[in-house]
Amino acid sequence: MTTALLTDHYELTMVQAALDAGTADRHSLFDLFTRRLPDGRRYGVVAGLGRAIEAIENFRFAEPEISWLLEQGVIKENLAEWLSNYRFSGDIWGYPEGEVYFPGSPVLSVEGSFAECCVLETVLLAIYNHDSAIAAAASRMTSMADGRPCAEMGARRTHEWAAVGAARAAYIAGFAATSNLEAGRTWGIPTMGTAAHSFTLLHDSEEQAFKAQLASLGEDTTLLVDTYDEDAAIRLGVQLTEGRLGAIRLDSGDLGIMARRARDLLDDLGATDTRITVTSDLDEWQIAALSGAPVDGYGVGTSLVTGSGHPTCGFVYKLVARAESADPTAPMTPVAKKSKGKNTLGGRKFAMRRRDEKGVAEAEVIGMGTPPTNDGDDRDLLVDVYEQGELVHRPTLEDARARHADSLAELPLAARRISHGDPAIETIILDASGDETTNPYQAAPNPGNI
Amino acid sequence: MTTALLTDHYELTMVQAALDAGTADRHSLFDLFTRRLPDGRRYGVVAGLGRAIEAIENFRFAEPEISWLLEQGVIKENLAEWLSNYRFSGDIWGYPEGEVYFPGSPVLSVEGSFAECCVLETVLLAIYNHDSAIAAAASRMTSMADGRPCAEMGARRTHEWAAVGAARAAYIAGFAATSNLEAGRTWGIPTMGTAAHSFTLLHDSEEQAFKAQLASLGEDTTLLVDTYDEDAAIRLGVQLTEGRLGAIRLDSGDLGIMARRARDLLDDLGATDTRITVTSDLDEWQIAALSGAPVDGYGVGTSLVTGSGHPTCGFVYKLVARAESADPTAPMTPVAKKSKGKNTLGGRKFAMRRRDEKGVAEAEVIGMGTPPTNDGDDRDLLVDVYEQGELVHRPTLEDARARHADSLAELPLAARRISHGDPAIETIILDASGDETTNPYQAAPNPGNI
Repeated sequence: MTTALLTDHYELTMVQAALDAGTADRHSLFDLFTRRLPDGRRYGVVAGLGRAIEAIENFRFAEPEISWLLEQGVIKENLAEWLSNYRFSGDIWGYPEGEVYFPGSPVLSVEGSFAECCVLETVLLAIYNHDSAIAAAASRMTSMADGRPCAEMGARRTHEWAAVGAARAAYIAGFAATSNLEAGRTWGIPTMGTAAHSFTLLHDSEEQAFKAQLASLGEDTTLLVDTYDEDAAIRLGVQLTEGRLGAIRLDSGDLGIMARRARDLLDDLGATDTRITVTSDLDEWQIAALSGAPVDGYGVGTSLVTGSGHPTCGFVYKLVARAESADPTAPMTPVAKKSKGKNTLGGRKFAMRRRDEKGVAEAEVIGMGTPPTNDGDDRDLLVDVYEQGELVHRPTLEDARARHADSLAELPLAARRISHGDPAIETIILDASGDETTNPYQAAPNPGNI
Repeated sequence: MTTALLTDHYELTMVQAALDAGTADRHSLFDLFTRRLPDGRRYGVVAGLGRAIEAIENFRFAEPEISWLLEQGVIKENLAEWLSNYRFSGDIWGYPEGEVYFPGSPVLSVEGSFAECCVLETVLLAIYNHDSAIAAAASRMTSMADGRPCAEMGARRTHEWAAVGAARAAYIAGFAATSNLEAGRTWGIPTMGTAAHSFTLLHDSEEQAFKAQLASLGEDTTLLVDTYDEDAAIRLGVQLTEGRLGAIRLDSGDLGIMARRARDLLDDLGATDTRITVTSDLDEWQIAALSGAPVDGYGVGTSLVTGSGHPTCGFVYKLVARAESADPTAPMTPVAKKSKGKNTLGGRKFAMRRRDEKGVAEAEVIGMGTPPTNDGDDRDLLVDVYEQGELVHRPTLEDARARHADSLAELPLAARRISHGDPAIETIILDASGDETTNPYQAAPNPGNI
């Protein structure tokens, strides 16, 4: 499936006008970054790079796309020909998936001709804005779960394909499994699930339903016990399995109180190994509130796939430098608009995480000249993704997951607090001489930080 | 592309267990509805039916899906065979797209064997929960725009395919156009767009950029005037077109003040026909606040594609009746679980909108027996979509758009207020004898309704 039309109309009208004016080939550098984190959030989580690479590989204008664009008058013949040969031939570098980021972090940089970089804007932003929003929420949830497994169950609460991306982003941020079969097939994420209330209601009695489930899925299955009376259902499940029932699921009511009651009852019945899973509108706050309850796992749906209040990230994709002519040897000039409140830092950047001697992150250092000498504690953040059109970065999803765990572990402890606050570390901007300069990003305190 | 794996794992384990237990063929009825509107919202908007029909048509388990499910141990051979022959063969009816809905409205009903209805749950909910959330936000925006055209520009702020669905939902709710090319191609929605700040920055001067754009796109194009100095850019645009410039776009700052200044300047320069379009984090409140400003059109991105604070709808898909055996002639029994706060109304329903003699909607009347006599002012809400597996409902997107405009026009005026409030009309539940019965939906006042 081509990704070529997952593109704003104006990307193509800009390229059309630039082609006609002879400026389309000017060598250009675009940065994908955010000026601020969502209100009160202490860090962001990069997710989407793996999907972005797929989108770039599938960014092809074949006959059906070209014909439609010509018919609609979006493009003219010269652009039609250019698009039909489109293949990204430039360089891309950025933060690996799973890495945390802060205001101003140059999460992805795309360098090539203006035209070839411009047309990727919409789909790259869409992927990063969605996937990173989900990953940031997921990371807060797994932090609060503190080792108890979280399962992603939000497929029914968001667009059907967004759900597949959400499951992937959640896995990067530490979720253990997903209910989403397509996410399992496409990305190899473990899938899970047993039964809903409808299964119990289908049968003549809860006993008939439980027997049917146990016969088909085995005693290690999870029985949903709150269709009628929880205590009766728990007793029934334990009795039918002679105490070997794998787990029960609670999906309504006051989950903390119910989990305590269920645990006591299970223990009284001798089912001490039967686990308790809770679901029902959980978010990071609910998970934190249940930290003292005897819960063995969380299933999270709505709040995960909607980013727990922040369904998008505010990433933008800005031209920060371009050549003064189409001559491939022409020098690059930093550029920046002056629109109010939307300042951009021009030019090519380095990015490193400054760490103290114990390895604790202290600052995000972004600069436009030579990076400062690394005293051994600091960490370079950028990896090459494409070199002259060739893909050179092929990490697995497990790599991204490990990267996230490591990056989070390195942040100051305050980063993991769920209360509203400022970014966990400051962003320091260095100018071309290596001197600190005014930071245009998240300069004002967060409204959420009282 | 098959939609078959856009499905929660548990749908298939339930069908597996039911197949093994001989209960999979019990005739069943599922309702898709919501127990409450998002806090403070006065009505919901049905969107997604057209996409749901596509998803049902493409719900096919071919060899790659079957093999993967078997390998993973999600299904056994008997279910593999059943899935490989899957084709929905039952009945579906519901609200047409564009119709407004209220708590308890039976927006979609799916009747057939338990198994064939069960497996559709996830993808149907995903589509309805997403598309209707966008449509509800869009409807509030077009109401506030009060005839001024709104353009959907949120492709970069949500999942790349969700964006296509969002553009479609927004169009149903009255948006005039989208920036999303795939939405244009797939759904025939008018697309629009001209240039971003990067286009101006690519060139040596704003004059060079404007000349390039005008040469390529013509004088009726929209020039983005806030890259450097708005006044200078407006003067330049007017001068280069000798006053015939189509439009300017303002994308930053205080849009009300800037629009006023821009209008005065354009008029002073004689460009009285040049339109003013505004963009930059608009939502329904901002649009309302700009109602007194000389604005000719709005471009809306983030808040539209994220549902303006409510990115999902809370639709659920519940088994409400099922046969007592797999015998096709067995009677259907209403069923309902008793989980706290999650009550369901069992059985097959009618739905009508009660209207007064002037045609103003007074109540959503939902019942489980014979509909009350229609005095001529009331309106039946349900349309047949599938009959015995055959698709019988093929409205166009324009039909859905017209349905929405008509349904909204029929609501009491208070429905269009953007302030938080209760549902615009009450939901009345009639029992099998036609008597009013307790309404389990949104019984408590909205928290947002102070």
